[in-house]
Amino acid sequence: MSKKNAITPTREENYPEWYQQVIKAADLAEHSVVRGCMVIKPWGYAIWENIQKVLDRMSKETGHENAYFPLFIPLSFLEKEAEHVEGFAKECAVITHHRLEKGPDGKLTPAGELEEPLVVRPTSEMIIGESFSRWIQSYRDLPLLINQWANVVRWEMRTRLFLRTTEFLWQEGHTVHETKEEAEAHTLKMLEVYVRLAEDYLAMPVVAGIKTADERFPGAVETYTIEIMMQDRKALQAGTSHFLGQNFSKSCEIQFQTREGNLEYGWTTSWGLSTRMIGAMIMTHSDDDGLILPPKIASKQIVLIPVIFSDDQKVEVLQYCEKFKKELESIVFNGESLGVIIDDREGRAGEKTWHWIKKGIPLRIEIGPREIKEGKISVTRRDKGPKERVFFKQSEFLQKVISILEEIQKNLFNRAKKFQKENTHEIKGRDEFFEFFTPKDTNNPEIHGGFALCHYSEETDVHELLQKELNVTARCIPLELSHEEGSCVISGKPSKRKVIFAKAY
Amino acid sequence: MSKKNAITPTREENYPEWYQQVIKAADLAEHSVVRGCMVIKPWGYAIWENIQKVLDRMSKETGHENAYFPLFIPLSFLEKEAEHVEGFAKECAVITHHRLEKGPDGKLTPAGELEEPLVVRPTSEMIIGESFSRWIQSYRDLPLLINQWANVVRWEMRTRLFLRTTEFLWQEGHTVHETKEEAEAHTLKMLEVYVRLAEDYLAMPVVAGIKTADERFPGAVETYTIEIMMQDRKALQAGTSHFLGQNFSKSCEIQFQTREGNLEYGWTTSWGLSTRMIGAMIMTHSDDDGLILPPKIASKQIVLIPVIFSDDQKVEVLQYCEKFKKELESIVFNGESLGVIIDDREGRAGEKTWHWIKKGIPLRIEIGPREIKEGKISVTRRDKGPKERVFFKQSEFLQKVISILEEIQKNLFNRAKKFQKENTHEIKGRDEFFEFFTPKDTNNPEIHGGFALCHYSEETDVHELLQKELNVTARCIPLELSHEEGSCVISGKPSKRKVIFAKAY
Repeated sequence: MSKKNAITPTREENYPEWYQQVIKAADLAEHSVVRGCMVIKPWGYAIWENIQKVLDRMSKETGHENAYFPLFIPLSFLEKEAEHVEGFAKECAVITHHRLEKGPDGKLTPAGELEEPLVVRPTSEMIIGESFSRWIQSYRDLPLLINQWANVVRWEMRTRLFLRTTEFLWQEGHTVHETKEEAEAHTLKMLEVYVRLAEDYLAMPVVAGIKTADERFPGAVETYTIEIMMQDRKALQAGTSHFLGQNFSKSCEIQFQTREGNLEYGWTTSWGLSTRMIGAMIMTHSDDDGLILPPKIASKQIVLIPVIFSDDQKVEVLQYCEKFKKELESIVFNGESLGVIIDDREGRAGEKTWHWIKKGIPLRIEIGPREIKEGKISVTRRDKGPKERVFFKQSEFLQKVISILEEIQKNLFNRAKKFQKENTHEIKGRDEFFEFFTPKDTNNPEIHGGFALCHYSEETDVHELLQKELNVTARCIPLELSHEEGSCVISGKPSKRKVIFAKAY
Repeated sequence: MSKKNAITPTREENYPEWYQQVIKAADLAEHSVVRGCMVIKPWGYAIWENIQKVLDRMSKETGHENAYFPLFIPLSFLEKEAEHVEGFAKECAVITHHRLEKGPDGKLTPAGELEEPLVVRPTSEMIIGESFSRWIQSYRDLPLLINQWANVVRWEMRTRLFLRTTEFLWQEGHTVHETKEEAEAHTLKMLEVYVRLAEDYLAMPVVAGIKTADERFPGAVETYTIEIMMQDRKALQAGTSHFLGQNFSKSCEIQFQTREGNLEYGWTTSWGLSTRMIGAMIMTHSDDDGLILPPKIASKQIVLIPVIFSDDQKVEVLQYCEKFKKELESIVFNGESLGVIIDDREGRAGEKTWHWIKKGIPLRIEIGPREIKEGKISVTRRDKGPKERVFFKQSEFLQKVISILEEIQKNLFNRAKKFQKENTHEIKGRDEFFEFFTPKDTNNPEIHGGFALCHYSEETDVHELLQKELNVTARCIPLELSHEEGSCVISGKPSKRKVIFAKAY
């Protein structure tokens, strides 16, 4: 049997192009006419809605309330934190006018020049800090735990759907604490929330760690990250949590009266997770037949595909599907009713099957006159081969459906975890490091070693060299590793801890 | 007993200022340092989250899917529909540069000028239309029913929290249909969704109607609206639904192959409802003691206020409150667990009571050692006087709480409905019209007749005259009125239908 795939090219043939084609085949998103912006289509947006639902619940359970702050930041505010503005200056969309007027040539042109230009928020530390400085008077107002769901804009020259777009959707948490210790603990608590979202819902194993100085958020004291290995062995930074010390509270004048009656600057944190996460999920699980959705993040877990050979069967089959759909919807999965679609469009069952394979729905069930007569249904799992059917009695399936979905969820996680482990290697020397990141196959420049775990002296010139020569960066210092003396694999200088290096998105 | 109110000034003393003070006292929102923008604080944002929850469910039940389109619209796209761009040109935030650079004076200035300026979306017809033109090929792709939750920007010179802000949050629905009839029916269906949201959840009686030509959405064939009477008898337009005919499909090239094989332009609709709705709710229900939240839109329905006279009572009272809270939370109201807060902050019960009165929570329950001993609780309703306590046995209250909340919800609606009826008058002649809108009390220039129902010939010069002389505009032609011959109360010319005139927000 010749193997034919729904997605061309395959991962092996051309990984970046495969990614674009998976998105297209699943109808998740498209490039917009607006340079660098994307349109998130309904099937893609439903994934974001589910990420929002899970993360919003976890954010509220950890004591945060949602609020909303302005889209625009006056230039003078952005400038208050020197490192911060430096980090974002090159990618700011700037508003300079507030109306359009017809020029002498009859064409509309910008008019009403602003006294001070406004920047479309690339992140909201400075504008939220301005409010916080007024909201906080005393230690009794602390901790202040706020989250915002918003769009942000970072002008990008080279964009890729979900992974890097000029506008993207995210949540940004901003908190203020009485003490350094409490703020540090909160930074880690929210990193753990991201780990739980990624691992328990999106079925993606992460490496949680601390960023080295060169990769820190502009203005942060420490940046924590979750890094996920994609199927081309590159790393994707999927969420970051920043301990900001008193840097931002000093530039924003966030002061409070302490228990002792003194005036002190607050200790702040911020943390963000964006629609990039959808890109990570696509690249972690999908195969050469298209998208694979983890059941817990899919808006629909099951599609019922009616198999109808003649018009006189139609009514009976569709009625049977409707009834079965209702029974399935009465089952609770992941805190909600199971999501079930009947694909009652015109067309052949085989075409519909491939349609839903490409869209990544976890379970496909074919129901035709034979299935009704025999009281059996044919079930296919998206994490298995497209022809691996299993037959169930209807009642039996109703009993087992939750455990099947949980098994798929677990299987996807384990598969990704195995891949991550197999492609993470301890590297001892410079030559080994360079060899690790050099593609073996010249036809396939994308394929390289994966994650390299090695001692590193954290020097900027070393980091720049590796970035330039190999396009490799320090991703993070894994939290699970304890301190360990050694010497940097590149510079030979003393190192106190191991770092993960990788090519990255 | 002298009457003392929590809000200064009262509605009668200074209605616009009262509105600002209600928002401040309830901690709902504040003006931002960014001109015209507001910060929505957690207690205000929670109202928006509940509006979103209800409306999103209704939007999905009527067949819509959510998607997300770019924040920016290229100037050339906005220009494609002449009336449309004309309507929005004066209030567009324009992006002209995409980075910041240090000038010779060391100051950051806009750099990287764009070839074509981008406008921050004031509404998304033109950018969504661009996608729709590619998504739609044939009648099989129709109807296309899409909704977007987003922020939009319309530059405003005079702003008021929630009612008129440069940036606001909203949902915008955009649909394409095969026939004129279907699109018209859909426009009305979504208007009805807005009526249900306003009346059934926000307890606000509306007048649903058609806009006269002068008040139509720029580019629409017909605009439908819900208008709500505020307590100063002015009208607030709280949601609009537009039948766009083929105007936008022609400018955006949204064409489809018909069942007969011809190429036709789609029939489109759009409809939007924004954070303005929160302003409407505040002004409809609140009193001189502050905000009043309808139970179905409140994030919390009940506050438990521990009454503690000495430290040794504290543990017992708080434990009792915790237990009672859990019992209340096991009750389902409006499809969810009852929302209950225990106000365990330091401070006197009396102060806390006023805190929650101003925040508008529907029910306040005081629990102290006496209540525990006697097995009774003291319950106060926000729609009644602040001292009108009713005592319940705890078990009795648990049985009755849902019906009490429903009664509050109904009471708020009926109160507003009565006020709307009492202040809506049929006007027969020009003098009567002018008198109706002339304040009787020179100390109170805001107080006037209310809604005037009268014949109107729909002439632009009449409309401009009334706007100039009285600051009165045609709000809508109520849908519930049938056609009726008459003559315009101002011009005397023939009129086919009665219109509601009012001063408006």
